[in-house]
Amino acid sequence: MTEDSDTDQDTVPDPEEVVQRHERQLDAALAEVQEPTPSTDESLDLELPGLELHRRDFVKAGAATGAMAGLAGCSGGLLDSGGSDSGSNGGGTGANTDYHVPPGEKDTYYGFWSGGHSGEVRVVGVPSMREIRRIPVFQKEGGVGYGHDEKTKQVLEEGGDIGSVAGYEWGDSHHPVLSETDGDYDGRWLFINDKGSGRVARIDLKYFETDAITDVPNMQACHGMAVQSPDTEYVYGIGEFRVPIPNDGTDYDDPDDYWSVFAALDPETMTVEWQVRVDGNLDNADTGKDGEWAFATGYNKEHAVDAEGMTHDDRDFMKAFNIPAIEAAVEAGNYEEVNGVPVVDGRQDSQLNQGDDPVVKYVPTPKSPHGCDVEPQGRYVTASGKLSPTVTIVDIDELADASDPAEAIVGQPKVGLGPLHTTFDGRGNAYTTLFIDSQVAKWDIEAAVDAEKGSTDPISGKIDVHYNPGHLQAVESETTDPAGDWLISLNKLSKDRFISTGPIHPDNDQLIDISEDASSSATGGMELVADHPVHPEPHDCVVAHRDKINPNNVWDRADYEGEKPFVTQDASGVERTGDQSVEVQMSSSRSQFGLQEFTVQEGDEVSLTVTNIEDVRDIIHGLAIPQYGINLAIAPQDTRQVTFEASEPGVYWVYCTFFCSALHLEMRSRMIVEPSDS
Amino acid sequence: MTEDSDTDQDTVPDPEEVVQRHERQLDAALAEVQEPTPSTDESLDLELPGLELHRRDFVKAGAATGAMAGLAGCSGGLLDSGGSDSGSNGGGTGANTDYHVPPGEKDTYYGFWSGGHSGEVRVVGVPSMREIRRIPVFQKEGGVGYGHDEKTKQVLEEGGDIGSVAGYEWGDSHHPVLSETDGDYDGRWLFINDKGSGRVARIDLKYFETDAITDVPNMQACHGMAVQSPDTEYVYGIGEFRVPIPNDGTDYDDPDDYWSVFAALDPETMTVEWQVRVDGNLDNADTGKDGEWAFATGYNKEHAVDAEGMTHDDRDFMKAFNIPAIEAAVEAGNYEEVNGVPVVDGRQDSQLNQGDDPVVKYVPTPKSPHGCDVEPQGRYVTASGKLSPTVTIVDIDELADASDPAEAIVGQPKVGLGPLHTTFDGRGNAYTTLFIDSQVAKWDIEAAVDAEKGSTDPISGKIDVHYNPGHLQAVESETTDPAGDWLISLNKLSKDRFISTGPIHPDNDQLIDISEDASSSATGGMELVADHPVHPEPHDCVVAHRDKINPNNVWDRADYEGEKPFVTQDASGVERTGDQSVEVQMSSSRSQFGLQEFTVQEGDEVSLTVTNIEDVRDIIHGLAIPQYGINLAIAPQDTRQVTFEASEPGVYWVYCTFFCSALHLEMRSRMIVEPSDS
Repeated sequence: MTEDSDTDQDTVPDPEEVVQRHERQLDAALAEVQEPTPSTDESLDLELPGLELHRRDFVKAGAATGAMAGLAGCSGGLLDSGGSDSGSNGGGTGANTDYHVPPGEKDTYYGFWSGGHSGEVRVVGVPSMREIRRIPVFQKEGGVGYGHDEKTKQVLEEGGDIGSVAGYEWGDSHHPVLSETDGDYDGRWLFINDKGSGRVARIDLKYFETDAITDVPNMQACHGMAVQSPDTEYVYGIGEFRVPIPNDGTDYDDPDDYWSVFAALDPETMTVEWQVRVDGNLDNADTGKDGEWAFATGYNKEHAVDAEGMTHDDRDFMKAFNIPAIEAAVEAGNYEEVNGVPVVDGRQDSQLNQGDDPVVKYVPTPKSPHGCDVEPQGRYVTASGKLSPTVTIVDIDELADASDPAEAIVGQPKVGLGPLHTTFDGRGNAYTTLFIDSQVAKWDIEAAVDAEKGSTDPISGKIDVHYNPGHLQAVESETTDPAGDWLISLNKLSKDRFISTGPIHPDNDQLIDISEDASSSATGGMELVADHPVHPEPHDCVVAHRDKINPNNVWDRADYEGEKPFVTQDASGVERTGDQSVEVQMSSSRSQFGLQEFTVQEGDEVSLTVTNIEDVRDIIHGLAIPQYGINLAIAPQDTRQVTFEASEPGVYWVYCTFFCSALHLEMRSRMIVEPSDS
Repeated sequence: MTEDSDTDQDTVPDPEEVVQRHERQLDAALAEVQEPTPSTDESLDLELPGLELHRRDFVKAGAATGAMAGLAGCSGGLLDSGGSDSGSNGGGTGANTDYHVPPGEKDTYYGFWSGGHSGEVRVVGVPSMREIRRIPVFQKEGGVGYGHDEKTKQVLEEGGDIGSVAGYEWGDSHHPVLSETDGDYDGRWLFINDKGSGRVARIDLKYFETDAITDVPNMQACHGMAVQSPDTEYVYGIGEFRVPIPNDGTDYDDPDDYWSVFAALDPETMTVEWQVRVDGNLDNADTGKDGEWAFATGYNKEHAVDAEGMTHDDRDFMKAFNIPAIEAAVEAGNYEEVNGVPVVDGRQDSQLNQGDDPVVKYVPTPKSPHGCDVEPQGRYVTASGKLSPTVTIVDIDELADASDPAEAIVGQPKVGLGPLHTTFDGRGNAYTTLFIDSQVAKWDIEAAVDAEKGSTDPISGKIDVHYNPGHLQAVESETTDPAGDWLISLNKLSKDRFISTGPIHPDNDQLIDISEDASSSATGGMELVADHPVHPEPHDCVVAHRDKINPNNVWDRADYEGEKPFVTQDASGVERTGDQSVEVQMSSSRSQFGLQEFTVQEGDEVSLTVTNIEDVRDIIHGLAIPQYGINLAIAPQDTRQVTFEASEPGVYWVYCTFFCSALHLEMRSRMIVEPSDS
């Protein structure tokens, strides 16, 4: 490390101190639940020394590299040893070939990946891991003309600008969630958050297109995202950053009075129904399977505004949102209307939390729990420890009854360093990413609960991943009946796993076969089968069987009837609608636009409508007038529109952007903008 | 087909007439070169009836579906039968597994794909076909912060707005080409065109980032792209659309006087050195291997402005640009300076084309030749027929000497319907995509030349692809010594090859093993091994061995010294530079920015500079202030800058967008914009 890049210890938390403090906090946390009796199981004995070693390395690495590098666990030395110390699939065996999808065959699953600050959702075939298409959400995109035609422009604009100063040009999508009916993916919608703002977007899975964006008031960053199970009556946007409300610079000195809110949207209308104001920053979320509860992890119960303050105390909370109690409070008028939204006070000292049926239960956990995941049976919700090497298991029924929410904690397995997220295979196993250890730990849920009573070791095995995993997802894990054959570990670092593409490295999504349980194996039967590089920066994914997603291959004209015309070849033409306005309508079909040329006057407002009259799937036409910034993608039977001002005279070639036929190059129209003085 | 989508025959060319006319033109064209003697080779006998059948289907389909669907060859019926009539790898055998790259191993080749109207370049590992990363070029992109920091903003802005009215927000990249030294890829630059404008961009392969865009004057659409072999002394941008110059609406009535130009840029400075004005629209391009010649196919010798007119005549031309003669003309002042560029008149009737050493030789070909490809030895240049089922082979040495360029045509193999592009394996074989037949034809170059003398059948075999291939590329095909193991067919349609993602379908890039020559096989040894879906809409790719591309994994500070500072933790701070301007500088490292908070005044112009002080590869930090549209990606040892006006007071959380450590969520800075009246 060069001299200049040494970090200054004066202004930041001392890493050794932070680590040691959290080790003490962990010990305190573990003391609150019964310590597991040391097991005689050999695999546990083999694991525990390893865990201890990692924890020592962790402290040592923190000291060696300075700053918070230790907590990151991704200093070169630590990471490399993590990758090479264990022989379990470190380099992959390549033995499992079931994931190969031969030419002409199809993937079994639809994977929907968030795209992070690329502001999109990606559709990935599982198990082949091929990216099939991107669905732009928070950022204009030329490939499919998103944000270029009036309809998708409006979606982006209706996304609003609450809190935006310069206008949002990008977004930071993290957590894709599929709508559900009866606890299963119903293939209707996919919802996605924007951590860069308070926005929540909806993708219509009939057309794989973003059809609504809502900018949620009173929220600067929507981080977590969940839909209510078993039926998507609410979509939840989980606010992370705490800000003053109103945020106008008049009152920013009391961070205790900053706001963070949990928001419920109607999935049909995408309007915000209500919000719950809470203590601390919110993080990730999931819901119970009976429609009664939603859960969110969080950090910064200290209400601090710097990292040191945010990691000061020894505990944080998982919040349990009591949906019927919240609805009752709204119904009874027990809310404050803020920026048009009913806000229920769910802070710890709120009157609404003092009775027998509080709106929010605060479940104490070790510091800064991160992943929040309900297992398929809906009995337990888990909070993955992040700064603690444990996962906290909460019994949802017990929580509903307990006067002290801590009593509902029924397990706290010690899974490894940096547990971030947990997913499920439907066979009773949980899988937790270990960010610092660069591993996935497989553990038995009931055994983890039993372990609290001193019986069994819950850890079934661990597998190395490359490197530093964030989210992971087993296929159909959000349903009540996961398929349990594949798991994807979304690793933030790829280091040297791929040919280099310069300093900006891709992430690495690794496909793991989890179809077998093998207690005799160090990995518990998990097998790494493929690495897949990904453009920055996916966070999470959700995976549904292909039978549950049924998009149209051609547009159904009934879906836009009354909003837009269907322009036939015969109807193609130019109509002057005013002194300085003109309507141009044309069809498009292989090799030709309905108009081979059209003339407008300088200064005209031109409303252009184009219909793709083909009805054969995959015969897409584009219409581009690049000098006027126009770029439409028109699928079969679809109509798209755009309006622009013909401000500069000249000849402009209108061309088709989708290679549609042997005469594709010749598929053009000539737009002549006549000078106003001609 | 619904009634409304029936196309009107009144205003468009009759498809049957066009097809029949081109069949007559083809016969005339073929009559000009000696017809190959019917071969006794059984595989040829098997192929020819197939070819005849396809041609009948072609006409029939055109009649049945109306419009130009027949020429497109992608009506449902025709296409489906194309996919199922032939058993040769139609469904894939899945037998070849050499293309699988197991976890921890690396791809052998870097593939660089154009992204079409997504305006980007994609880096794809070959043979795994995994997209490793995207390099945004003509469109802002949030994932890597392209167009968001001052440096890349400037690249996009310097891309200029010649001919742009609304400002370019996207581009249409088609043809990636790698810089060469001694006829081999030198790993220095990749160049890419924008068909949506006259722009040419350069990507710096040290950092995999677009570092220059030039808006070429006198050009509305830069379609083709090539670098001079064997050393990249020129980058050629090939203008497709013909427009009036000046294009100000004053004189648009005489399309004969519209311009199309072939432009030469200096690869170091990216300035336009000279242009050559030609007759007809230009299309694709390639260069000779001795630095003397560049070639471009073209269409519309008729100078028409509609598809019917553009396909009226029976012939078109491939233009051969005589580089030394052009340089001599420029040197001698034999040019017109137009919009700052020396333009040499290369039209057929130009004085410069009348002597012994014309600047442009017009080689007659069948109508609308498309692909233009020089084989590795540099002896022949090929023009793929598009509307003719032939590839025209021109002997470059003979062309240099011939007074009549037609005399240099030494072969015209009949390869199948819709030949678009040709690539080479270095073993003497050529591979041509057949758009209409949905096949790749493999043929022997010397045999094709010999066939003109009546000896052998040049076609070695054909393989079905799915469906309607445009470009294809054998690895390292542009060098003098291609590796010859893999070929990629870039198919425009995927139809039902993948789980559906709605009406906008992906393209389908198919990987074909060409390592074996097998004359006994119907495919000539070609084997289809994998399908890969791709987001709209790549056109072409270029593939280099990984040893030839050597990017940095961490920024070298020397590369920006004097332009931008390197901000250490100690140097982090805020400095007021004027009444309404302030400089904010900070470091970034795992879990922390150099400033945990900073305060500016409402109305301040804020110049923000951020350095990533890490020197470990893959530890990237982001810096986002979404409400101000700010989104920087800062790789290790890099510095990025952005300037904005703090126009709205409030608390704005500055956060890290790359998940960098276990305390990533806590990695924030608090920007306080104080109200101006406070």
